[in-house]
Amino acid sequence: MKKICMFAAALVLSLSGTLMAQTKKSFTLDDLMYSGSNFWNLQPENLHNAWWGDVLVQLNADDVCTLAVKGKAVARKPIFNLADANAVIEAAGLGKVHSLYYASFPYAEKSQVLLKNSKNTVLYDWKEKKVLWSQPRVSGAIAEDFNLAARSTAYVREHNLYVMDASGKEHQISTDGSRELVYGQSVHRDEFGIHKGTFWSPKGTRLAFYRMDQTMVTDFPLVDIDHRVAKLVPEKYPMAGMTSHKVSVGIYTPATKSVVYLQTGDPTDRYFTNVAWSPDEQTVYLIELPRTQDKAELVAYDAATGARKQVLYTETNSKYVHPMHPIMFLPWDETQFLYRSERDGYDHLYLMSVNGGEPRQLTKGAWVVVDVLGFNVKTRSVIISSTESLPIRNNLYSVNVSTGKRTPLDGGTGVHTATLSASGAFICDRWSSPDVIRKIDVVNTAKATSVNLLTSADPWAEYEVPEITGGTLKAADGTTDLYYRMVKPVGFDPTKKYPTVVYVYGGPGVRNVEETRNYMTRGWEIYMAQRGYLIFVLDNRGSSGRGFEFESCTYRRLGEEEMKDQLKGVEYLKSLPYVDADRMGVHGWSFGGFMTANLMCSYPDVFKVGVSGGPVIDWKYYEVMYGERYMDTPQENPEGYEATSLLNKAKNLKGRLQVIVGYNDPVCVLQHSLAFLQACEDAGTQPDYFVYPGEGHNMMGKDMIHLHERITRYFDDFLK
Amino acid sequence: MKKICMFAAALVLSLSGTLMAQTKKSFTLDDLMYSGSNFWNLQPENLHNAWWGDVLVQLNADDVCTLAVKGKAVARKPIFNLADANAVIEAAGLGKVHSLYYASFPYAEKSQVLLKNSKNTVLYDWKEKKVLWSQPRVSGAIAEDFNLAARSTAYVREHNLYVMDASGKEHQISTDGSRELVYGQSVHRDEFGIHKGTFWSPKGTRLAFYRMDQTMVTDFPLVDIDHRVAKLVPEKYPMAGMTSHKVSVGIYTPATKSVVYLQTGDPTDRYFTNVAWSPDEQTVYLIELPRTQDKAELVAYDAATGARKQVLYTETNSKYVHPMHPIMFLPWDETQFLYRSERDGYDHLYLMSVNGGEPRQLTKGAWVVVDVLGFNVKTRSVIISSTESLPIRNNLYSVNVSTGKRTPLDGGTGVHTATLSASGAFICDRWSSPDVIRKIDVVNTAKATSVNLLTSADPWAEYEVPEITGGTLKAADGTTDLYYRMVKPVGFDPTKKYPTVVYVYGGPGVRNVEETRNYMTRGWEIYMAQRGYLIFVLDNRGSSGRGFEFESCTYRRLGEEEMKDQLKGVEYLKSLPYVDADRMGVHGWSFGGFMTANLMCSYPDVFKVGVSGGPVIDWKYYEVMYGERYMDTPQENPEGYEATSLLNKAKNLKGRLQVIVGYNDPVCVLQHSLAFLQACEDAGTQPDYFVYPGEGHNMMGKDMIHLHERITRYFDDFLK
Repeated sequence: MKKICMFAAALVLSLSGTLMAQTKKSFTLDDLMYSGSNFWNLQPENLHNAWWGDVLVQLNADDVCTLAVKGKAVARKPIFNLADANAVIEAAGLGKVHSLYYASFPYAEKSQVLLKNSKNTVLYDWKEKKVLWSQPRVSGAIAEDFNLAARSTAYVREHNLYVMDASGKEHQISTDGSRELVYGQSVHRDEFGIHKGTFWSPKGTRLAFYRMDQTMVTDFPLVDIDHRVAKLVPEKYPMAGMTSHKVSVGIYTPATKSVVYLQTGDPTDRYFTNVAWSPDEQTVYLIELPRTQDKAELVAYDAATGARKQVLYTETNSKYVHPMHPIMFLPWDETQFLYRSERDGYDHLYLMSVNGGEPRQLTKGAWVVVDVLGFNVKTRSVIISSTESLPIRNNLYSVNVSTGKRTPLDGGTGVHTATLSASGAFICDRWSSPDVIRKIDVVNTAKATSVNLLTSADPWAEYEVPEITGGTLKAADGTTDLYYRMVKPVGFDPTKKYPTVVYVYGGPGVRNVEETRNYMTRGWEIYMAQRGYLIFVLDNRGSSGRGFEFESCTYRRLGEEEMKDQLKGVEYLKSLPYVDADRMGVHGWSFGGFMTANLMCSYPDVFKVGVSGGPVIDWKYYEVMYGERYMDTPQENPEGYEATSLLNKAKNLKGRLQVIVGYNDPVCVLQHSLAFLQACEDAGTQPDYFVYPGEGHNMMGKDMIHLHERITRYFDDFLK
Repeated sequence: MKKICMFAAALVLSLSGTLMAQTKKSFTLDDLMYSGSNFWNLQPENLHNAWWGDVLVQLNADDVCTLAVKGKAVARKPIFNLADANAVIEAAGLGKVHSLYYASFPYAEKSQVLLKNSKNTVLYDWKEKKVLWSQPRVSGAIAEDFNLAARSTAYVREHNLYVMDASGKEHQISTDGSRELVYGQSVHRDEFGIHKGTFWSPKGTRLAFYRMDQTMVTDFPLVDIDHRVAKLVPEKYPMAGMTSHKVSVGIYTPATKSVVYLQTGDPTDRYFTNVAWSPDEQTVYLIELPRTQDKAELVAYDAATGARKQVLYTETNSKYVHPMHPIMFLPWDETQFLYRSERDGYDHLYLMSVNGGEPRQLTKGAWVVVDVLGFNVKTRSVIISSTESLPIRNNLYSVNVSTGKRTPLDGGTGVHTATLSASGAFICDRWSSPDVIRKIDVVNTAKATSVNLLTSADPWAEYEVPEITGGTLKAADGTTDLYYRMVKPVGFDPTKKYPTVVYVYGGPGVRNVEETRNYMTRGWEIYMAQRGYLIFVLDNRGSSGRGFEFESCTYRRLGEEEMKDQLKGVEYLKSLPYVDADRMGVHGWSFGGFMTANLMCSYPDVFKVGVSGGPVIDWKYYEVMYGERYMDTPQENPEGYEATSLLNKAKNLKGRLQVIVGYNDPVCVLQHSLAFLQACEDAGTQPDYFVYPGEGHNMMGKDMIHLHERITRYFDDFLK
């Protein structure tokens, strides 16, 4: 017998009773997924906020007001409106600003707002009704990166890196940029937390930037059909075990118009990650890894000369280290910074000194730090969110940097995402839980008191909504708790048997079940529940937020432990009288597409129907950074690659499996799915297939709706 | 009411009665389609034949015998065997010959046989037991072309053209050959009857060859996934209305090792087709067309100098002319030759003189010459096959060149394919009809008498075979007869209603219904009949063998008249009580894939399920030669291209349509199907899709079986 721990009250939004049900509306897919008008009508109420120093500001399309917290009350006070601002900005020949949703307030207590339109960035004083400063935006520029202190913008145009300084002068930093020689953009295929390629020093006197030479990397032949004759659009794609790119980090000093490169040594098969600046702008810090990813070194470089100064910290792990966060200096002590590490098995904060010495662990426990929001300078604390109270929650805490003492800043349930005020005295906390549709609170980080700004009414009150519950079950290792959510069919009748679809991701870095509104149920799941399906989502071992061992038990054999856990979910489902064990389906995308195809081929008698989107089929076709972290290279781990390759399992396919991909997917390239089809053809098995020309790894806009109609139809065809 | 003319007795091979039926076998798809062992067991009996002068020879794997016709009897006499031949050939160090199926007998009355293995071509004397001559075959050579008189072989190796002469000396003819500069291979994308690129003069003293410059042609980006990283394999593909290649014709004279090019003038937008030699080897004839294809000129060139000598004949047509056959000189008069033309509306023979003068029409009537086998020198007649007796037949005739009198050489039914003996005195006639599984007869072309060599027993006697009938119905024009075949479900019960699938091609140059065994029913149709489907195949207007007007009524609007005729077929089907009008499907490949997708989108309420293979979706993506013949260019005929584009009809799709393509199809490139998917995605319609990586325009081998399992499953899923 299975012991099921119900960790939260079931969320029952639908009214029972056939009579009532008939009066309620049903959702369309557009209602649930598309950015159409009714989609927005059906979203929880919202407020756009920004911080103006420690004053919270409410951004509306046409005006802005302050939200002053007085005790438990909030006083709204308009400060300026768009029409007045535009009158001045347009008169200055700087064009028209279209809304105030993206306004920012750079200087506490000054009546100045930073606004943008497609042509200019404008600093406007709403009291003086004057444009104080403006900067033109360069046509065709990408990767724009603005530094407020220097009022300078770095950007890339036609492959080369530029800076426009506060006076509007353009500095060209590189001249030989190309598709193969990439400047100022994200490198290492966005792994190691890298999502951009320029890093201003705090005061904007220097710009660190990435340069990536990928001339030596194989081109993957992507084809763009949106031309009179289809065109090759090659994508530099280093596949596992093959030659990779070479990255370096340059430092540009606008004052001297000079570039130096950090003296890292030969960049072959090395990763330069997590660029950070010292507060005095004299030092640049990188976290460096060899291609094997079993070591991370925190290295300090002289920003003026590029000289390698010091290795401040080294961490090794026989599986892998996975640094994702640049160091953060304490605002009150320029010699001390926070380093995030999984060295004790969980992602925690360590206090380190630029002068070396043993790191001091600041947070500890069988839970992980999810985010570091910043610091409360006055209380000398760091504000974090973590999973301390439950793996599926994110709660806010103030952590005293001296004592390590944690003070909870929220009610201890749900998932909170927050922004910190300038001094760190306040946070604006936006959260939900199975009981809370959406709340926005203002929290005093010193006193841990909060005032509610907004509590959303139920936007789905007129709709028939399925019953959504969460729970845990034991992983295949017999000890680990796994979290799931279940979406019951609309009009659920426990005496009936329902076709059941497992939705899965299952890969590292992602958590699918959170203690949010509806446990994070996706629109499509609601849609499927309306059509009479039961949906089940389980975060298996290998997924995120549970520590290193939970994630890395899949090392060198991606998919195997993950599937065992999913089978535990199936075992549980089969124990339920209302689940039809003969009508089990599975669906997932990306890693979840890999899981789906894998489950269909590895457990052909369990799942009758699967829809596998953008799947990995064989890890040798995946890229170097992510792939080798979890699988090593094909040369080092041939048996792991063989054992996990779906090319070898294609022959086992029995049920109906549709593979769906974006034809221009640069992440899981087309070779995965095509090689799978070929393997099936050779083996005489019959998958189904569909492609979205022009789409990448995920479908966008209308194609997303088309895709989910398609997925639904496939289950309707073969599982219903 | 519809008047149906039954033109032949129904072929009922299946025994009726449930009891009997139970004792009969069913076919597998491999039985019906694959080159596996049982497939060959289930083929009609066969003989491999060759001519040795006027003596018919039977080729077996291990020996050869003569078949001497004496009155109505045939005397078989062994002449040599493979073991003896190989003993000599191997002793000569020339390797081993593996079978005698491909032996040829170059010299009447001489005991000499030409044999080949992978290394050598060998002339062996079986009486003397000697190798008389041999020539090594060059490794990596393609497009080999052997001239017996000169014992020389032309071939292409690494893009360049070579000749090996009788002494074994290799002559290199071109040096700058490349993917873009093609020598000695077929040009103009195999249109105008072109299937090779070298043309020996009769005695082998000169070699005419094609040179095609396609540097100016757009590459279509095909991708080969059978590499560690998928590779681009660009295909020079001139799309309708776009820049095309430039072809020239060279003449190589081995004796002088010199090349001259025919002085055709600027080759831009011109076609040089149907290369022919004068018997004296002094003149080369081309049929030349401008890109508009509305004119054909027969032009004589001096083979020694390349000088343009004379335009012998010009034919124009406001739609198109379509020369497919080189001129043929009369063996008894080197000044006269046969020219084939559709100038009177049907493909007929004309006698012309090298000295000019008006052509004399040799055959005439509302039927077409299908093939010219050659001449009976003694009776001064030409041996042809034609559709004179019925459009779905090919019968053999001797046509007296002086009088034009035609003498039938066969029984006047069925479809005959024949080979002529050296003097033309005999033909070996291989034929079938709905009543005749396969017969091989030897026919005396002077006396029109024949002796039967082989009458095949029914190879399917132990199998349950569906009832297959043929018939006609009126085209949408109200007057033209169209021919169809119908395959009834196995175990047909006229009181039941059956799901019905229309199989269609419908394009020019193809006839799908012939008065052969089973009316040319394809193996898959038998398989479908076994599974309870009724199959219907109708040759609409636009298809071949019916004359120019029948074919060209589709000009500039491909698909429109063709579909109207197919709808007449549907009308007829719906009049039958045993056809389930609610379960109509359609399937076709290539032009038939275009027809299938077109029918699904143009008549969405008629067809519930379709499988469209390798379809044209928009003629602008098809190649210049074929496409512009029937559609003109997109610039000249924009409204025709718009009206026939399935991109504009994708929005109408209601039923289930699966599009299936070879991922490496160089004929209907992938842009067709991908653009269709994109149009459907934009319109919110839902086709299905499948691809065969590595396959071209048609699936081969195991993939062909996989494909037909797939097609069958689709109808099973949604039509059954």
